[in-house]
Amino acid sequence: MMHQILPILQYNIINMKHHILLLLLCTTAAVSHAYQFENVTAPPYPVITPKPKSITFDKDTLTIDPCSLQVSVTLPKKLTESVSQFISNSINTFVKVDLFPTQTCNPSPTNLTTLSITLTGETQPNDNVLPPVLQDTDESYTLTIDSVKGAVISAPQFSGVMRALGTFSQVVTGNGQGVEGKAGGSLYEVRHTPIVVTDAPRYKYRGIMLDTSRRFYSVDTITKLLDSMAVAKFNVLHWHIVDDQSFPLELKTSFPSVTFNGAWTQEQVYSQKQIWGIVGHALRLAIRIVPEFDNPGHTRAVGLDPYFREIVRCFNDVDGYTVPGAYRIEGVPHTSTLDPSYEKTYELLSGVFQEMGTLFPDSLIHLGGDEVDTTCFDENPNLKTWMTQQNIANYSELVITHLAKARTLLPEGKRAIYWSDEGSFYQRYRDGDVLMYWGSSANMKNLTELYPKLSYILAPVDYYYLDCSFGNEYGGKSWCDPMKTWWRIYSFEPSDFLPETDERVLGTEVPVWSELMNEEALFQKIWPRAAAMADKMWGPKAAVDLVGLVQRQVSFGEHLNARGIPVTHISGRWCEVIADHCFAEHIPQSIMASQ
Amino acid sequence: MMHQILPILQYNIINMKHHILLLLLCTTAAVSHAYQFENVTAPPYPVITPKPKSITFDKDTLTIDPCSLQVSVTLPKKLTESVSQFISNSINTFVKVDLFPTQTCNPSPTNLTTLSITLTGETQPNDNVLPPVLQDTDESYTLTIDSVKGAVISAPQFSGVMRALGTFSQVVTGNGQGVEGKAGGSLYEVRHTPIVVTDAPRYKYRGIMLDTSRRFYSVDTITKLLDSMAVAKFNVLHWHIVDDQSFPLELKTSFPSVTFNGAWTQEQVYSQKQIWGIVGHALRLAIRIVPEFDNPGHTRAVGLDPYFREIVRCFNDVDGYTVPGAYRIEGVPHTSTLDPSYEKTYELLSGVFQEMGTLFPDSLIHLGGDEVDTTCFDENPNLKTWMTQQNIANYSELVITHLAKARTLLPEGKRAIYWSDEGSFYQRYRDGDVLMYWGSSANMKNLTELYPKLSYILAPVDYYYLDCSFGNEYGGKSWCDPMKTWWRIYSFEPSDFLPETDERVLGTEVPVWSELMNEEALFQKIWPRAAAMADKMWGPKAAVDLVGLVQRQVSFGEHLNARGIPVTHISGRWCEVIADHCFAEHIPQSIMASQ
Repeated sequence: MMHQILPILQYNIINMKHHILLLLLCTTAAVSHAYQFENVTAPPYPVITPKPKSITFDKDTLTIDPCSLQVSVTLPKKLTESVSQFISNSINTFVKVDLFPTQTCNPSPTNLTTLSITLTGETQPNDNVLPPVLQDTDESYTLTIDSVKGAVISAPQFSGVMRALGTFSQVVTGNGQGVEGKAGGSLYEVRHTPIVVTDAPRYKYRGIMLDTSRRFYSVDTITKLLDSMAVAKFNVLHWHIVDDQSFPLELKTSFPSVTFNGAWTQEQVYSQKQIWGIVGHALRLAIRIVPEFDNPGHTRAVGLDPYFREIVRCFNDVDGYTVPGAYRIEGVPHTSTLDPSYEKTYELLSGVFQEMGTLFPDSLIHLGGDEVDTTCFDENPNLKTWMTQQNIANYSELVITHLAKARTLLPEGKRAIYWSDEGSFYQRYRDGDVLMYWGSSANMKNLTELYPKLSYILAPVDYYYLDCSFGNEYGGKSWCDPMKTWWRIYSFEPSDFLPETDERVLGTEVPVWSELMNEEALFQKIWPRAAAMADKMWGPKAAVDLVGLVQRQVSFGEHLNARGIPVTHISGRWCEVIADHCFAEHIPQSIMASQ
Repeated sequence: MMHQILPILQYNIINMKHHILLLLLCTTAAVSHAYQFENVTAPPYPVITPKPKSITFDKDTLTIDPCSLQVSVTLPKKLTESVSQFISNSINTFVKVDLFPTQTCNPSPTNLTTLSITLTGETQPNDNVLPPVLQDTDESYTLTIDSVKGAVISAPQFSGVMRALGTFSQVVTGNGQGVEGKAGGSLYEVRHTPIVVTDAPRYKYRGIMLDTSRRFYSVDTITKLLDSMAVAKFNVLHWHIVDDQSFPLELKTSFPSVTFNGAWTQEQVYSQKQIWGIVGHALRLAIRIVPEFDNPGHTRAVGLDPYFREIVRCFNDVDGYTVPGAYRIEGVPHTSTLDPSYEKTYELLSGVFQEMGTLFPDSLIHLGGDEVDTTCFDENPNLKTWMTQQNIANYSELVITHLAKARTLLPEGKRAIYWSDEGSFYQRYRDGDVLMYWGSSANMKNLTELYPKLSYILAPVDYYYLDCSFGNEYGGKSWCDPMKTWWRIYSFEPSDFLPETDERVLGTEVPVWSELMNEEALFQKIWPRAAAMADKMWGPKAAVDLVGLVQRQVSFGEHLNARGIPVTHISGRWCEVIADHCFAEHIPQSIMASQ
């Protein structure tokens, strides 16, 4: 466990059927180790990541005591549990509690005592089911905070409730020590009230991709990642679960031996029970999980299973290269590929996709298709004869045929995503497929002209690759230097490359590849930079807002640090103390021009 | 507190005057949360950072149970306490213990049961004083580990004992769960025995510079930094304690109001009591602490004190720039300077240096002299008249005169260090002064030709700046891109630039500036990269050893992670599992060439 975070509150959930009162009963008020907010001169307005579509505010400050805040929800049971989970993980944990609390709660008089949550949509979800998050799910919400009505959240759908809580968690500030040290108890505050936020995102798909094949991350870390994503209003975790290096996905009914042989160790497997837990945790945060089985390339781990060894070309075994000339990236032979001439290849795909279908309720499954090294096919001396029999003209057509066949093995109702870059522009897809484009932003227009009837998720390598620029496997320069700074990430605007109204763009995603990553460094490399993408894609297209962005990035980073997720600052202490002193008219034009 | 690390052992220190038996009595054997070493195929030889001068080893494995290991020392009392501290912090903490232990220790039969430590130098230190670490202190040692004599450390001086323990802590491996899961209890092991290490460093000064002005770091963090430095055999912490941004050094007898007004907050001050604690902790690790008061530049914080406001040129107040054209770096007006025409300037220096002298026993004091913005002197309309009276021809001469006067205010017996780069080549020094060169490596030869009778500590910006390449204050490129990778750091070899036998080179230092740093990211940005410098400067000059270096960097990083200091990996999981698979003959020549 990287960090111990204990909720300070216990909940008495009184199920009153569609009107549930969450009494936040406090058993500890041990704030002796409370996070010490530094004496930062806060900006004179609420700082919320992503920047809301519309916000009005004033000058009042309201106080909150977690001991006595009543959360009143008009929600079905499952959603109430979700709200409870969010408040536990994202609001209460501001207080780093004493591990051996000796005090009991002594509520102080406050003037913000209620948080009310109402679903306004016509269709109320079933009591016992979490509503799925879909591409057209409505994430809009309103949040008002004043001394008369308290904090009030209303949203047409559950996703909006979660986004509103993401905002609420960021306007609750203070150190739990009382307002400016004057009050006792464990007071927090909401400044700049009355606040009215009316909010909705610009792009529907805002994702982070995690690669758990090159490096295994604990369930605890993935859970914390989801919690932090929810605060920044990310709504997709794209789980690149397997690859050449390891196969940590537990297959139970199809091919358990692939997991057994393909995982780094038997402990470094995501059991189906754990995956259910992760998917459930994400759904309670209104976050989708999109699973991926990249094929036919990136499949070496499958060949570690004796049954499937024969279908993997360029297996590049540990004890010797079967194809010495195969090129390599970041120290790993790159890349094995499934042989489409074997029926076993489709046994495998069918098994994996069927199990993925039962594990992941999302409508999307990612089929990969990335970086197929067609020279590997030369390894099979019988392949060309087989291709002639099948009327397949060349290796490009072979890959196209393979991916078409793979798509037929998806469970019913699933939509296919594929990786796309300049090297895969020979591929053919079916109308309605989704391309996840990781190539250079300069070729984005070519992409949409080549595939005009597809949808796109944009993850351009020159703006969004978070793992890059920390050096390569040999200590040399990273292939994708320089650093993608928060500003670089924020400056990617789809409409600079494609028509502003291009509805084929579903959204964007920052990938976190793990060739040179580890559990201890993960959050440091993701946050707060990734939130700059969420910020840009949520908020309305607007003029550059460098000052505001810096304040949001700093504030978001401090929020995570206060919750025990260690992340770097993107700004100097000087600028944080002296709000906007470093920016605005003081920024040298030469620096602005070099962004 | 970032991470909770508890020692698992309690010591019964039986003072037998010059022959003390440390009985490591175990009260907990709660290894349920023991660090899980991954199933890495370890290299078939001991992996020690820095690489020892000479090592022989064989194929036996010995087991250790911390419950029953007896540490037998022939050391004065203060040194025994130091050994005890090191073992507590750097060996036992491999085991992440259960916070609520329920088991008691049940020693297992092992075959490495003793660690003996002997000082062989002619002069035995006094019982009650920690010996100072000097430039000519002998850090050599021998360490032998076999089943007959156990582990035996002998060294002429105490520093050698500490370096030997740095090695010992790295050869003790395992997960505390027993050898290959077979044994019970909490066994560790030493592989590749019998081991004989005969070791001594190549360069005498191997430092890390920490900047606590731009960002305040807790005493706990500085203590952990020292602990981790000791493992890598660093022997100097250069403490850049104050600068333009804040003055966190507690002045008690001279000018307490400078601290009061110049610190970020009253909590963000290093009290003299805390400094004594840090200095003592460092001395027990045989690490020197070299304090710095950079002047006349980088002194804005002094001007926050009303008494000294008048002596600070280019004060650049928060509420307005006194010199609008003053250039800026990383968001801060750059840089204020003390006015040499005021007697108060020397009151200040005298007070600070005298207090530093009582706090820091080291023979070196760093006077800065860095980046003096002489255009700031224009601010004082009377200065030129004063200069004429003093027979000072120009601003360069003014700075030279100032620094010469500053040196006279050092406490007796202290030697002066100054920053040096291409911009300060106009300065004049006294023979025997030390220049800390942070300019480009390309100008190193010019430096030594200009100042042939000085000594040098090398910290070239193009090899050693650890804080760089993470973007700048405005989210643009860092001024010192690209990333200084572990390989880049390792590849700096003083004798590539200066004669190999140039005894004027005292050693090297990696600076960790803090304009864009924070407590949560500090260790991630320092480790394991910094250890590549220690590795190169300790070990004998030799041919490139990329495979060995990677193994040492990975192993050192895992050592720190196991101790609760989160650091990034520099290598892929693939390469770690398949030892040296990624390297040696498999490294493409093109990649080697691009290093």
